Amino acid sequence: MGKGFDLILIFVILLSVVLVMLESVTEFDQKYHDTLFTMEWIVTIFFTIEYIARIICIRKPTSYIFSFYGIIDFLSTIPLYLSYLVAGSQVLLAVRAFRLLRIFRILKLVQYIGEASQLGTALKASRTKIAVFIYVVLILSVIMGTLMYLIESPEAGFTSIPRSIYWTIVTLTTVGYGDIAPQTTMGQFIATVIMILGYGIIAVPTGIVTVEFAKHGSKGKNAEDKNLVHVNTHSCSSCGVEGHRDDATHCFKCGELL
Amino acid sequence: MGKGFDLILIFVILLSVVLVMLESVTEFDQKYHDTLFTMEWIVTIFFTIEYIARIICIRKPTSYIFSFYGIIDFLSTIPLYLSYLVAGSQVLLAVRAFRLLRIFRILKLVQYIGEASQLGTALKASRTKIAVFIYVVLILSVIMGTLMYLIESPEAGFTSIPRSIYWTIVTLTTVGYGDIAPQTTMGQFIATVIMILGYGIIAVPTGIVTVEFAKHGSKGKNAEDKNLVHVNTHSCSSCGVEGHRDDATHCFKCGELL
Amino acid sequence: MGKGFDLILIFVILLSVVLVMLESVTEFDQKYHDTLFTMEWIVTIFFTIEYIARIICIRKPTSYIFSFYGIIDFLSTIPLYLSYLVAGSQVLLAVRAFRLLRIFRILKLVQYIGEASQLGTALKASRTKIAVFIYVVLILSVIMGTLMYLIESPEAGFTSIPRSIYWTIVTLTTVGYGDIAPQTTMGQFIATVIMILGYGIIAVPTGIVTVEFAKHGSKGKNAEDKNLVHVNTHSCSSCGVEGHRDDATHCFKCGELL
Amino acid sequence: MGKGFDLILIFVILLSVVLVMLESVTEFDQKYHDTLFTMEWIVTIFFTIEYIARIICIRKPTSYIFSFYGIIDFLSTIPLYLSYLVAGSQVLLAVRAFRLLRIFRILKLVQYIGEASQLGTALKASRTKIAVFIYVVLILSVIMGTLMYLIESPEAGFTSIPRSIYWTIVTLTTVGYGDIAPQTTMGQFIATVIMILGYGIIAVPTGIVTVEFAKHGSKGKNAEDKNLVHVNTHSCSSCGVEGHRDDATHCFKCGELL
Repeated sequence: MGKGFDLILIFVILLSVVLVMLESVTEFDQKYHDTLFTMEWIVTIFFTIEYIARIICIRKPTSYIFSFYGIIDFLSTIPLYLSYLVAGSQVLLAVRAFRLLRIFRILKLVQYIGEASQLGTALKASRTKIAVFIYVVLILSVIMGTLMYLIESPEAGFTSIPRSIYWTIVTLTTVGYGDIAPQTTMGQFIATVIMILGYGIIAVPTGIVTVEFAKHGSKGKNAEDKNLVHVNTHSCSSCGVEGHRDDATHCFKCGELL
Repeated sequence: MGKGFDLILIFVILLSVVLVMLESVTEFDQKYHDTLFTMEWIVTIFFTIEYIARIICIRKPTSYIFSFYGIIDFLSTIPLYLSYLVAGSQVLLAVRAFRLLRIFRILKLVQYIGEASQLGTALKASRTKIAVFIYVVLILSVIMGTLMYLIESPEAGFTSIPRSIYWTIVTLTTVGYGDIAPQTTMGQFIATVIMILGYGIIAVPTGIVTVEFAKHGSKGKNAEDKNLVHVNTHSCSSCGVEGHRDDATHCFKCGELL
Repeated sequence: MGKGFDLILIFVILLSVVLVMLESVTEFDQKYHDTLFTMEWIVTIFFTIEYIARIICIRKPTSYIFSFYGIIDFLSTIPLYLSYLVAGSQVLLAVRAFRLLRIFRILKLVQYIGEASQLGTALKASRTKIAVFIYVVLILSVIMGTLMYLIESPEAGFTSIPRSIYWTIVTLTTVGYGDIAPQTTMGQFIATVIMILGYGIIAVPTGIVTVEFAKHGSKGKNAEDKNLVHVNTHSCSSCGVEGHRDDATHCFKCGELL
Repeated sequence: MGKGFDLILIFVILLSVVLVMLESVTEFDQKYHDTLFTMEWIVTIFFTIEYIARIICIRKPTSYIFSFYGIIDFLSTIPLYLSYLVAGSQVLLAVRAFRLLRIFRILKLVQYIGEASQLGTALKASRTKIAVFIYVVLILSVIMGTLMYLIESPEAGFTSIPRSIYWTIVTLTTVGYGDIAPQTTMGQFIATVIMILGYGIIAVPTGIVTVEFAKHGSKGKNAEDKNLVHVNTHSCSSCGVEGHRDDATHCFKCGELL
């Protein structure tokens, strides 16, 4: 029965995200406004019941309420109620997308969570190196952006230093919108230098991450067992902890019967 | 003689793909419409004969008809006939491009197929890691896209959330068309964050694939013999299996004389 | 007390960089011109005092004045004074961004400096390889740029060879502004070739840097102690050397009491 | 004396490339047309003398004339003479850029050539893998391009299949000009898929090349001596072979006194 509830939950989460998207498409919203509105209410009521049920089932509700998923669940439920009180509270609808992270857990995608945590470990290990890298990129952007502001005219779109820095990052990351583009020969020359820099610099994070992956990948086989995270949406009714083994009968933290 | 037929087949496949392209160029089609039409018929008839011949030569035709190449051969042959019955069946012409995959086999590019299968193995091994990565990228795109929809005005092109998500992916993958571009300072700031994220995130799949290549590359020398795939377009007349050794006299599956 | 001064210094450096940015935003400058002007003077006076104090405290001031940080400190202080004498001396304001490099040292981010120097070592080791790579990219750009100039019309934006080379680099580095884009079929075909080249070529610097990182990363554990750079903004009053250990009582170079 | 000549040669080669660029800038050409024309003649005469001198100095001139550098030297010399006979022979001026490759040899950049040959070896070793990769990318582009042609309207720029394929490659390589961009929701969805594909696919060549670099880099120390190419522009007067050791007195091929 718990499995059936999980599947319905996934469906409602996906539905709620799709609803938010469809409401933003003007033509679609005008045609089917009432249907969308009704479905939005159904989703919200479902979320409300789920949220209250979770609180009731747990002896120490605060541990759930202030957990990461607890806050996201609350924020995904509240917007429709708030829209009657506060204008512009639609902003919170975006929070629902975070709920998609639950799908991993619900689907009991053990293997995927293992891989994800392995990726996470590698990224964590290269944290300081990447921070240094981003800091250098930002300083480079500030210097190059200021330089371009001084060289290029406002007609080409370089109206202020922040805008010039925005253009520099657009160029350095090889995105290249083209809404702002250098017109003078000097500006184009410096743009060329920035591009080749960006082209070369992209090698640095790749190199860092690859080396970390290689390190953690070799440990992979031994670590495989550790990665076997037991996914389970049922939280302990006593202390609210999640992540119990599927065959657990007692909470691994407080020993209470599940 | 089989070799001569293979070369003609390659030529006709390439010709058929070029024909589809040329027909789509309006000026070219208006000038040489009759020539193109005639050649299209010649190609279709050639494909029809080849398809029927293959079915006749094989004792169990169903094994060929429902194989990957069997379906593609059928779909590349049928569109011209269908165009007299169903409007818009031209869509199927695109299927012909898949036929290009045959060229590998026909040209007996043993070495290339070996390399391809090696690449395939490495990509297969990093499948779950890449799936996790793409899932995270998609959730990130949904969240960032919704955020940008709320910040930016419709005048800048952010008319709906799906469109905003489209813009986010364009930015995150460093494509950057520039048909939609943020106008407000806040929007440009978030765009900058997305770009640097995308710039750093690109390191992840590269790292994953490189590590897998390194693992499989080291096994490369031992695996070389295994990679020596024997390519041969002749399918067994009894069971329809392909991939016989060039010096095979009996089908490796059913033992029938080839 | 030294720590308090360091924190104020970081704040003033960040403030001065933000001020330069805000002054460039026309609407903002018109509204708050007087406030910005006053603050600019406060920052400049603070920098002047700091600069003079540093010179006074050191017995051999020349060693500080002609050091990297000495020159940057001087260039960040002077522009406002110069603006009364020389027009266009605002250019020097961009120099202030270099001061941001000080923040690393001030914050005593030992670990980060260690990582940075490790990155630096890896990049240094792959210097010649990258130089060869950039040289080949440049020659390729000149050849392809000239070719595109001859093929494409000036209407499409290919008005001169330097401009065509600019376009080639924009394409080769996958930036792709779209301000200049090929219109003819032949031009689009060559553009396609350049793109795939650029797509493949990006692999080269990444490969170089990754291999170097892997080499230096494996030495990482032994090198960790060496990387423990002791950061300290206090320069020896006798010889002006920086980089003393936090617990140092004598200058490591001249033995003078700190 | 040979060294002095080499330096002049480098200068003239660079000058000739700069001249071709400047001539293409209309405003510059109109102002200084006579100066540019005179200098172009000086460069051409210098190249002519050098070319004839090389032929005279070698006993078997054909070995030089039909060598890679011999052909480039000829093609860089001839355009100005041809311009009196054949219209549009300016195309050959682009060939001059290849002469820049000589600079490596002239500058006796032993180390750089060593690195370049190492890079070359690694790229050569991954040749078949990269060929397979490009072949798959091209087939993917043809299929996706045809699909987009059928989905998107000609108003969005998808006027023919070749043009759609051009757009697909622009997107897949993350260049993204934006001169052609999908307008329909369906088209934007497929564009998104292509982008994420391209984003992931970029990992493949990087992985291939990195692994090859790692293999050849580890052999690097032993190979260092081999890489010590002796660069020398003097070709043997007897057999025309280049690449003698700097301290060579006899040709390494024919034994003739140099």
